[in-house]
Formats: sequence, C-alpha cells, structure tokens
Amino acid sequence: MRSLDIIAQKRDGKELKAAAIEFLINGYVAGDIPDYQMAAFLMATYIRGMTKAETAALTMAMAKSGDELDLSSLPGCKVDKHSTGGVGDKTTLVVGPLVAAAGVPVAKMSGRGLGHTGGTIDKLESIPGFRVELAQTEFFSNVQRIGLAVCGQTGNLAPADKKIYALRDVTATVASIPLIASSIMSKKIAAGADAIVLDVKCGSGAFMPDLKSAETLAQAMVDIGTSVGRETVAVVTNMDQPLGAAVGNALEVKEAIMTLQNRGPDDLTKLSLALGAHMLMLAGRTASVEEGERILQELLVTGAAWDKFREFVAAQGGDVKAADNPKLLSQAQFRLPVPAPKDGYVAQLRADKVGRASMGLGAGREKKEDVIDLAVGITVKCKVGDQVHQGDVLAEVHANDIDRGRQAVAEVLEAYTVVSEPTVSPALIYRVIR
Amino acid sequence: MRSLDIIAQKRDGKELKAAAIEFLINGYVAGDIPDYQMAAFLMATYIRGMTKAETAALTMAMAKSGDELDLSSLPGCKVDKHSTGGVGDKTTLVVGPLVAAAGVPVAKMSGRGLGHTGGTIDKLESIPGFRVELAQTEFFSNVQRIGLAVCGQTGNLAPADKKIYALRDVTATVASIPLIASSIMSKKIAAGADAIVLDVKCGSGAFMPDLKSAETLAQAMVDIGTSVGRETVAVVTNMDQPLGAAVGNALEVKEAIMTLQNRGPDDLTKLSLALGAHMLMLAGRTASVEEGERILQELLVTGAAWDKFREFVAAQGGDVKAADNPKLLSQAQFRLPVPAPKDGYVAQLRADKVGRASMGLGAGREKKEDVIDLAVGITVKCKVGDQVHQGDVLAEVHANDIDRGRQAVAEVLEAYTVVSEPTVSPALIYRVIR
Repeated sequence: MRSLDIIAQKRDGKELKAAAIEFLINGYVAGDIPDYQMAAFLMATYIRGMTKAETAALTMAMAKSGDELDLSSLPGCKVDKHSTGGVGDKTTLVVGPLVAAAGVPVAKMSGRGLGHTGGTIDKLESIPGFRVELAQTEFFSNVQRIGLAVCGQTGNLAPADKKIYALRDVTATVASIPLIASSIMSKKIAAGADAIVLDVKCGSGAFMPDLKSAETLAQAMVDIGTSVGRETVAVVTNMDQPLGAAVGNALEVKEAIMTLQNRGPDDLTKLSLALGAHMLMLAGRTASVEEGERILQELLVTGAAWDKFREFVAAQGGDVKAADNPKLLSQAQFRLPVPAPKDGYVAQLRADKVGRASMGLGAGREKKEDVIDLAVGITVKCKVGDQVHQGDVLAEVHANDIDRGRQAVAEVLEAYTVVSEPTVSPALIYRVIR
Repeated sequence: MRSLDIIAQKRDGKELKAAAIEFLINGYVAGDIPDYQMAAFLMATYIRGMTKAETAALTMAMAKSGDELDLSSLPGCKVDKHSTGGVGDKTTLVVGPLVAAAGVPVAKMSGRGLGHTGGTIDKLESIPGFRVELAQTEFFSNVQRIGLAVCGQTGNLAPADKKIYALRDVTATVASIPLIASSIMSKKIAAGADAIVLDVKCGSGAFMPDLKSAETLAQAMVDIGTSVGRETVAVVTNMDQPLGAAVGNALEVKEAIMTLQNRGPDDLTKLSLALGAHMLMLAGRTASVEEGERILQELLVTGAAWDKFREFVAAQGGDVKAADNPKLLSQAQFRLPVPAPKDGYVAQLRADKVGRASMGLGAGREKKEDVIDLAVGITVKCKVGDQVHQGDVLAEVHANDIDRGRQAVAEVLEAYTVVSEPTVSPALIYRVIR
C-alpha cells in the first residue's frame, strides 16, 4: 500500500477501504507519513467528503492509535456525554451527579477550555482542593463506590486525532463534517464509552452556526456510533445565547450547584434532565425519555442529586463546605453592571460575544498554555424574550481588573439587541437524532 | 494577508487575486509558508482548478521567483521551443540549426532526461568534447556570432517551480492542467522567451495520454502566453509510437544529423519543419507556416542547416569529425535484433514501452542522480502501418550488457502489436492551437 495512491483515490472521490485509512493514520502517527502528505489527504477529504463507512473507519483508526481505556470492570453500560462546546455550558456538572444518583455509573474524562468555550475540568478546579488528576485505580474505585468520577484526560488517548487536529488547524481543513465527527467520536471511544449522548450545540456561540450544519454533524456522529457498535443519541440544542445565566468557571459551578438544588435556571435544568434521561435510556435503566426525566426530576426534588454532588466533591478532595456555601468559591474583586440602553425587549444575546467578553476578563484561554482566572466571568440577568427598561441591569461583569471589566461591560452590551416589539424566548432543544 | 485564508478561498472554489498567489509563492520559496500548507493549497487547486487569470498569475509568480534571463541584448524576437516530452524526440537538435540557418537566433536552455523521456542536453553530450555548460557571455556571443547556442539550465531559474514540483510529486497533485501549464511556462519565461512554440505530445509515450487532455493542456499554455504577452503556439502531436526511428542519446544524435542532411525519417523531418515554421512566424520572419516550411525545406536541401549544425558543434567545443562521421559517436557493444513474431501489419508500437526498454538498457534515468549510458538504445525499423513478415527485424537493441539487452528485446517485442489486417500510419500532427 502506498500513501500516494490512497491520497489520489480520495482526491478522485473514490471510497477508501478501512485498511487504507488505517495504513494512513498509523503511518502518520508513526512519523512514516509526513505532514505534507496528510495535509493533501485532509484537503482532499474536506472537498470530497467521506462515506459513512470511511468516517467510521477513520474514527476507529484514530481511537486505536493510542491507549484505550478499558471500563469493562465497571458494571453495566458506560454512557458518556459530550458537548460540542458552548458558552455557559455547565451541564456535565449537573448531569453527572444526576445520572449517578439514578444508579447509572458515570466514568468521565473531561477537557479544559479553549477559545470562548469553557471546560469542565477548569470549572471543577474552582472548588478548593478538588483534584482533577486521578490515578486509574482511584478513578475506578470512585466510580464503583459512589457511581461518579470526572478526571482530566490521562494517558495517550487518540494521539492520531491530536496530531491531525493540529494539522487541520493550519491547513484550512477544520470545518469538515467527517473530520469533526471522527475527531469527537474517536476520543469518546478511546475513553471507553459503550454508548454516547451528544449535545450538539448550534448557533452564534457554537462551532456549528446553523441548524442544518449542526444536524448534519449530529447525524454523522450517530452514524459512526451505529456502525461501530456504540449506540449514540444526539440532541441538537440552541447556543445562540448562553446556557443558563453564568459564564466563567466559579460562577458556573455556583449555578450548577443551584441547579442540583432544584433552583437553577429553567433552560439549564431542562437540558440537564433531557441529556440525563437519554443517558438512562442508553444504559437500559429506563424505557422512555419521559420516564427518565421524571426519575431525574424527582432526584432533584428529594436532594439525592445534590447529595451525590457533595459525595463526588469529597471523593476527589474538594472542600464540601465551599459547595454548601458557594460564597467560599473564588470571588472576583469587582462587579460591574451592564445597564439596558433603552426600554424594550431582548431580541438577541450573542453567545459568542459574551464568551469572548468572558475570555477577555481572563476566564478562558487563547492558547493552551494560558493561565486562567477562575473567579471572573459574566452573569446574564436578561435573556432573549425578556422585557427590559432603560437602566435595568442586563448582566453583571465579575472582574479582577477594572479596565478589563469596563471593556467587558462594553462587549456584553454589544452582545445584546433590544427592540421595541415583544420577542419570544427561543426553543432550547431543536431535535433528537438517534 | 494570511496563507490560511488563501488556502480556504481556493478550497471553496473562489478565484484568487494575483497578489494572493504571489504572496503564497514568495512565502513558500522564502520558507515562511511550510510544505503542509502548500500541499493543502495544491490539493485544493488540483480539485477546484484555476481560472485563466489565476494560472497566468501563478506562472508569473513562479517565473519571477528567481533569476530571469535577459535576452534583450540579442537582436529580434527570441522564440523558444518546448516539448512536453516523448520517446525518440530529438526535434530540438534539428529545429535549432534549421531556424538559426533561416536567420532567427535560437538561445536555448535545455534539460536532462528523466524517466522514459530523453533530454537534449544528454543527447548533445554524446558528441565528444561538446560542452553543455556555457558561461553567460559565451552563450550570448555564440548566439550573436552563429545564431545558435544550447546550454544546460544555469542560475536559479524559477526556484518556486522546482520546489512546488517536488512537493506535487509526493502529494498526488502532479496531473493538474493549471499546475502543469504554469510549471512549463514559468521556466520558459524565466529563460527569457519572447514567444514560445510548444510541442504538446499526446499518446502512450507522453505525459498526456489522450487527445482531449493534450488539447486542454495546450490551450492552457497558449492562454497563459497570451495573457502575459508572450505569443504562444501549441502543436499537438502524436506520441503513441516513438518519433523517428532512434531512441537513445547517441543514436538520436545520429538520426538528427541524418535529418539535417535531408535523409532523416519522414515524421521527424515533417515535425521539425512544422515547429520551425511556427518559430519563424512568431519571430516575424515569415507571413505563413507554409512559407516557413518552404524556406526551411530549402535549407535542408542546400545543406545550410547541416552547416549550421557543424558550426554549432564546433562553437561548443564538440568534435566536428564525429558529426561528419557518426560512427565516431559512442557505439554499444551488442546489437540484438527484435524479430517479427508472425506475418502481418504493425497495429501498435507503444512508445512508453520502447522508452522503458531503452531506460532499462541504461539510456535514461530513474532518479536525477543516475548516470546514463550514451551509447545504448533502440532503433525501430518498422512502425505502425508497416507490413512485416515473420522473422523480419522489427527493431534493433543497442546494449552494453547482454542480459539487459535480451531483456530489452523482450520488452520491445511486447511494444509491438502485429495484426493480420492492413493498418494505416497514424496522423503526426493533430492540431495547432494559437
């Protein structure tokens, strides 16, 4: 087999055999196939696309390119949950304890934030003492004992994906559905998932700006899951405005805590219940999504989900007192209001702009190496559909630097569009693809 | 300007501005743009194609990427002739002296052979003492004095083309019309051509296997010439069977000599007159191709073309006695006949197979570094349309190693198809594009 022939086949729009894709991926990770050949292949793939079978083969070749986490010693079906990334998306912090409280074990590897979307691992670190790096034995024993563990990525998971992603970034080949879908799915599969619930975000604050492309990506990932024997459900959700009210690490933890105490924002609660219910279904715990949502709602009401979160924090060395009293979490020095410029109704609250304002405060990373400020961020008080009066506080900026705070106030203000005619709150969940 | 944006535009099939193409080419030559980005760009270009304006801009960016030969001190319009490469193609050896004898100066840089197609520079070196490396002053003074000089490529001509060609070779992006056309034209323009006559070969022994692709390439090169102010004519010619009878360096020189003495093979004579006549036209020497052919034919008859060749050999240090008596050129040790396997008519004589047989004897290079044997090669005695009887000598193999010679006999035999029904000699010149 020659890499040149494989590239030429893809260039000419022919379907590649799984063995050819494996040859290319393994050769690239081994350093036998140079960057320039992979770049030519990626561009050909970007333009020509991939069939379902090719995309599945690429996913598995990348999943098998490094370590593969074996979760088989844990009981039952291991369901992973993944979000394609949004602004204010703290659902994992809510869904994890919720599903674990329902008796379905959650063994989750999670990432750090990059760009204007946050990462679960960063958020958890805003709880004093919380350890996100767990040895494998502790990771497993925590899941066995309390049903839940979340840790940063360990080992050499899907190195092919890491290497290819870096190359896509510098060759204008990022926005390709088969490449995005296989990248996400390869990491989930290498992390040991038996089944996967995907939250595919769609809108100004998401990687996929419009519903059509989000649905296409969701379908591609569900197709991969189906063809490689990992049952996958994708929920396509709104990311035009931030999810919930809080954007920023400690602020989001605080909001997740309130949600687990059944007093969180409606949209975050609703999405957490929906995603959790799909996880229960895939795990075989329930027969319908409605049944799952009922069970999970009950766990919020009884306090079982909240108890599970406290157990989880304690198990990973976090300060449970800080969970009980979120004022003990990092607090920013300054709180600056964003006043409504006029009377009217909120027609738009651009998630990307809020995300970038939060990043400007220090809550997110421009580059992987950047150090972030866990305390800073934004809490939005008014969302799309809300009526406002001139001078009302639309949002609050939490800053540790007054100049950066003022800059963020201006940016958040720009994220809002206030109109004179009444507007409606948008749909949260667009579609479920399975 | 960012290379990533330029790649993305080409990826999406948008037309690039000349400045963007220049930025990319200059950055690549300077080493600021890495191979993997150029590879992605080349693949996008391969699949999306290029407009005429883009192809012209790419050509000029490559032509200007290094040294540019300035022939303006030589009188008149400098017309270059270029062949896309074939088997037994020794037309430059005939056309050069012919056109010079007609009073149109020829200042030609030529290349060495690679693969199964030969190079003029190698062929000339089979004349004892002939120097193909000329200092610029000698090159110019020879053209001024006798109207003709041919030398190997000097200086750093079109380094962008060299670097991009090497990358295309390893990224499955060779067979792209705009990339091929701009590669050829950039070198001609950097070598100082005011006008260009192209011999675009078509058939089994050519880079372009079919008439349609050869015509497309020819048209693309003519379009480039037109848009950058270098009048260009392309003659699309048959390369299904070798041109003339001789294949191999010294053997081809011998055949060129016979042709200049007006006793060469019909096809070589005819093509040389046609290409030469187009050169005279472009140089403003004649008003029609027919007039040019008449003048050049006369120069063959009178011996003026042959005299010019002798002058040319002498001027570049070659042994004129060897030109007068080609038996003094390198001779191979063994001559092995290729016998006709049966009675019938030659239906096919695959140029590529003859070229590869010749290469197997040592006449051509597999890699640039290979040393070639100037004496070896093949002379075909029967061509398509000829009637043959079993045992007739179809061709002769000239070898310096008996085993390689026998191997070549088998290969040449395989190049022939003999059928029982009469066949016709194919057309030599398919089309003239201007």
